[in-house]
Amino acid sequence: MTSSISRFPVPETLDSLPDDIRDAILAVQEKAGFVPNVFLMLAQRPTEFRAFFAYHDALMERESDTLTKAEKEMIVVATSARNHCLYCVVAHGALVRIYSKDPLLADQVAINHRTAPISERHRVMLDFAIYCSIEVGELNDEWEARLIEVGFTREDIWDIGAVAAFFGLSNRLVNLTGTPPNAEFYLMGRVPRGK
Amino acid sequence: MTSSISRFPVPETLDSLPDDIRDAILAVQEKAGFVPNVFLMLAQRPTEFRAFFAYHDALMERESDTLTKAEKEMIVVATSARNHCLYCVVAHGALVRIYSKDPLLADQVAINHRTAPISERHRVMLDFAIYCSIEVGELNDEWEARLIEVGFTREDIWDIGAVAAFFGLSNRLVNLTGTPPNAEFYLMGRVPRGK
Amino acid sequence: MTSSISRFPVPETLDSLPDDIRDAILAVQEKAGFVPNVFLMLAQRPTEFRAFFAYHDALMERESDTLTKAEKEMIVVATSARNHCLYCVVAHGALVRIYSKDPLLADQVAINHRTAPISERHRVMLDFAIYCSIEVGELNDEWEARLIEVGFTREDIWDIGAVAAFFGLSNRLVNLTGTPPNAEFYLMGRVPRGK
Amino acid sequence: MTSSISRFPVPETLDSLPDDIRDAILAVQEKAGFVPNVFLMLAQRPTEFRAFFAYHDALMERESDTLTKAEKEMIVVATSARNHCLYCVVAHGALVRIYSKDPLLADQVAINHRTAPISERHRVMLDFAIYCSIEVGELNDEWEARLIEVGFTREDIWDIGAVAAFFGLSNRLVNLTGTPPNAEFYLMGRVPRGK
Amino acid sequence: MTSSISRFPVPETLDSLPDDIRDAILAVQEKAGFVPNVFLMLAQRPTEFRAFFAYHDALMERESDTLTKAEKEMIVVATSARNHCLYCVVAHGALVRIYSKDPLLADQVAINHRTAPISERHRVMLDFAIYCSIEVGELNDEWEARLIEVGFTREDIWDIGAVAAFFGLSNRLVNLTGTPPNAEFYLMGRVPRGK
Amino acid sequence: MTSSISRFPVPETLDSLPDDIRDAILAVQEKAGFVPNVFLMLAQRPTEFRAFFAYHDALMERESDTLTKAEKEMIVVATSARNHCLYCVVAHGALVRIYSKDPLLADQVAINHRTAPISERHRVMLDFAIYCSIEVGELNDEWEARLIEVGFTREDIWDIGAVAAFFGLSNRLVNLTGTPPNAEFYLMGRVPRGK
Repeated sequence: MTSSISRFPVPETLDSLPDDIRDAILAVQEKAGFVPNVFLMLAQRPTEFRAFFAYHDALMERESDTLTKAEKEMIVVATSARNHCLYCVVAHGALVRIYSKDPLLADQVAINHRTAPISERHRVMLDFAIYCSIEVGELNDEWEARLIEVGFTREDIWDIGAVAAFFGLSNRLVNLTGTPPNAEFYLMGRVPRGK
Repeated sequence: MTSSISRFPVPETLDSLPDDIRDAILAVQEKAGFVPNVFLMLAQRPTEFRAFFAYHDALMERESDTLTKAEKEMIVVATSARNHCLYCVVAHGALVRIYSKDPLLADQVAINHRTAPISERHRVMLDFAIYCSIEVGELNDEWEARLIEVGFTREDIWDIGAVAAFFGLSNRLVNLTGTPPNAEFYLMGRVPRGK
Repeated sequence: MTSSISRFPVPETLDSLPDDIRDAILAVQEKAGFVPNVFLMLAQRPTEFRAFFAYHDALMERESDTLTKAEKEMIVVATSARNHCLYCVVAHGALVRIYSKDPLLADQVAINHRTAPISERHRVMLDFAIYCSIEVGELNDEWEARLIEVGFTREDIWDIGAVAAFFGLSNRLVNLTGTPPNAEFYLMGRVPRGK
Repeated sequence: MTSSISRFPVPETLDSLPDDIRDAILAVQEKAGFVPNVFLMLAQRPTEFRAFFAYHDALMERESDTLTKAEKEMIVVATSARNHCLYCVVAHGALVRIYSKDPLLADQVAINHRTAPISERHRVMLDFAIYCSIEVGELNDEWEARLIEVGFTREDIWDIGAVAAFFGLSNRLVNLTGTPPNAEFYLMGRVPRGK
Repeated sequence: MTSSISRFPVPETLDSLPDDIRDAILAVQEKAGFVPNVFLMLAQRPTEFRAFFAYHDALMERESDTLTKAEKEMIVVATSARNHCLYCVVAHGALVRIYSKDPLLADQVAINHRTAPISERHRVMLDFAIYCSIEVGELNDEWEARLIEVGFTREDIWDIGAVAAFFGLSNRLVNLTGTPPNAEFYLMGRVPRGK
Repeated sequence: MTSSISRFPVPETLDSLPDDIRDAILAVQEKAGFVPNVFLMLAQRPTEFRAFFAYHDALMERESDTLTKAEKEMIVVATSARNHCLYCVVAHGALVRIYSKDPLLADQVAINHRTAPISERHRVMLDFAIYCSIEVGELNDEWEARLIEVGFTREDIWDIGAVAAFFGLSNRLVNLTGTPPNAEFYLMGRVPRGK
């Protein structure tokens, strides 16, 4: 109903923010060319801002055993679509396209990973991520065996479950605050560079 | 798991098809620049092909009282996303963008129309379409009053419900056959013409 | 709340209708002894009427590989009951009784096909039809193998899924319009002829 | 998968049963002309048999404040259909037809009481019964007010909830034992007496 | 919203009750040290009171083939938690603790039997009880085989299903009347005797 | 199936841990008298450990406008029970009892807050928390008005939603790792001090 950034207060200027948070925002702005709205939405709560991004980076920038950056983003998109979180589907859909170099994959995973042209590894990975995220399912011997059979290690399994869990938190904050994705995300990775 | 057009046979050449079906396919190809995969998926069943597109056109090309082409396509996208039908979300998402001239609207409606920056008219329209499509709900006095209050006529209400119902059929055929959207649809309407 | 035929306009006399639609209605009246209410409900929309019955006949009058008329009607009844569509359960329940010559089968399939005294072929057929209709599930290798194992061909599988999909559309139109089944349907096929 | 009376043992002859149970069975047989299958299903457990029918009679033969016998049977049919219990839908559907003298009401209530041509009193009554039975909902001030507004007393509300609760038990026993309704029930009350 | 015993009338004094009901209440009071609230809630309906407790005792005091008293109470707790019935979870949770001599088992089973440190026998037993209670599932060959494999007899299977069914009735009566568990139940079996 | 602390590695001794994590564990041990299992479960991932507890403290130790510590713990218990997370229900149930000084409240809220003897403020708070946690619902004007009407500020609303979101993450980690609550938590706050 609104195109603003949040139902809650956002900083009017960056000057009012603690230094580390302003620096973090300026850094992402320099890298992306714009400030993703979640940074501004969370900035009104500095302690939560710090913990959120520390957790985000711990999972998403972690060097996993075999789980790739593209796979992590596929998990985010598939679970966030089930949670009806537009921000995460659009922003992380851009990252799926960029990391996978496949301009169609994000939409395929968001709408129905069961009919998507993906590998068995990815099918099992997303089945498990949705089981963790949507059913709050317990890891058991059957799931562990299925995941290991398609090449994941036990630490990868933690990563899959933890990424699904963390973005479940993110999805809920976004729907609580009504934060929309920046317009820039929609087109990222859809058109070949250089065109 | 496959990038082919259907789990069922598709015509190898258009020459093998009945004249009217070949003509319909050539016509859409001339207009769109490519043959949408559902035309080929349905071509193996000429009688069903004719009925499907006759029904489609009866609803989608109908001059409704107040329901616009863009609104009809929004209904298709919102209900098809709930049914996890990638083909309809992507192909009709393109039409939402083209008719509404809004490059972001299709994704917003597909993932969560409740948080989308749309009018009350569109919110009620999509709530009702999802009620018809997903809950197979009955029209009752409350719904009729709500829909009329936001400007729809009684014939519009039929159109909303019938579009939701028809694309429910379409969604099921697509998931039965595993038919993917053509790659061309994904980008249509996202980039301003002339660029 | 009403015993009328539709919440929307129905023709007051057949004379006002296009010739082909009037002829279709007179033909079914001659055969059945009465005009089924869906014919009158749809008559206000001639183009949709023609497409609806063309599609209906394409599926239901098709000479399938092994799928019988009675089996098609069982699919209609089982899926329509899950969609809470009284018209289709009652009208097609009559056809189940007539085609199967079993006066109890329609009620058994409508309420719980899992406890019904039916063959494994019919159990798998109805499980799949409900999967297509209610879950909008995708055909996959497992389902295809199960269906072929109980004697269906691949074209039969299309027919099962398409019948489920088409009557999902029909169920939604009926609940949109509030069209009740004609009283005549309730008793058809329950009492042995000649009595 | 079977047309027998139960997956569990049933008495081969009535002679083997305790006197009071044999008498109860003979009494219902004299009245109905046949022995309803649940009597035989439960006869292997005499103590449970006695408690079940004592509870049944306490609720169904109770002189309620305003709740009629026909209304109680409507509650049984509507909730049992949601629980997919064929026995209760068919056997108590017969009683709905007999008590209400309406040959169509049972099927209407079983498939969709929301589209059935019933009074507001009956609509609210069945909404509440389904809320108790399917959602295990709690009685609260809103429900109490709605029910009293359509003419029920507080003791009637107990009766509605208790009938829904008791037949939920009955539905589960029937699906546990696979007990089918006797063929005689299907036609009872559908054809006018005297024919 | 209330700490009273029921939304419906309860006897002001025991003197007003029929002799057998007063005796039953006095007996449980002597044994437990207090009158469990369900006795008072049901006392306003003597015929239902008698049938309810007759059924309860028939199942719970029955000498089953292999199903123990502790196992029956585990079934009550697991299914009642799914039905959101505080009374049964707390009162029968006390019995789980007492019969099993395990002070933690009741909470584990109430919240998630899938992650509880229980045997395979108990896992399958509770899976089946929940299938009967929540899904109103039918007993079939697969379930029968699984249950027999972990050591249950066919009569035990009846007992498991019947206990789940009976407490489904109990859960619904409790939520209808708003009857809370007595405070005494919460702590029973949590602290070792003698302390 | 196991009484160990996690399906994943846990530190064999505290000596192997980074200083800050060892200190955090020793501090909680000193305060509680034992090390809560989640500390050990998360210790194998120090970066995630730090972010998790930083986020936890940011929300739970925050001085909210009107939301009390007891209320925050009620939110944790009600949502964690819906997610079938035994650890959070038991550990935070202890905190509900301690902060509220009500030994019965935690179980009441875990099993059914709708029938619990709580204030309207608490009823609306828990309805909203469950809406955020289980339905991933969006904050809208209706919810905001309802929450403000019972005394919450807009910042309180953020806190309610954020606590529900954070413990949704916690619930999923617990079910991923199979981490059980320490036995000590079960009895805390149930028995008056001094006894």
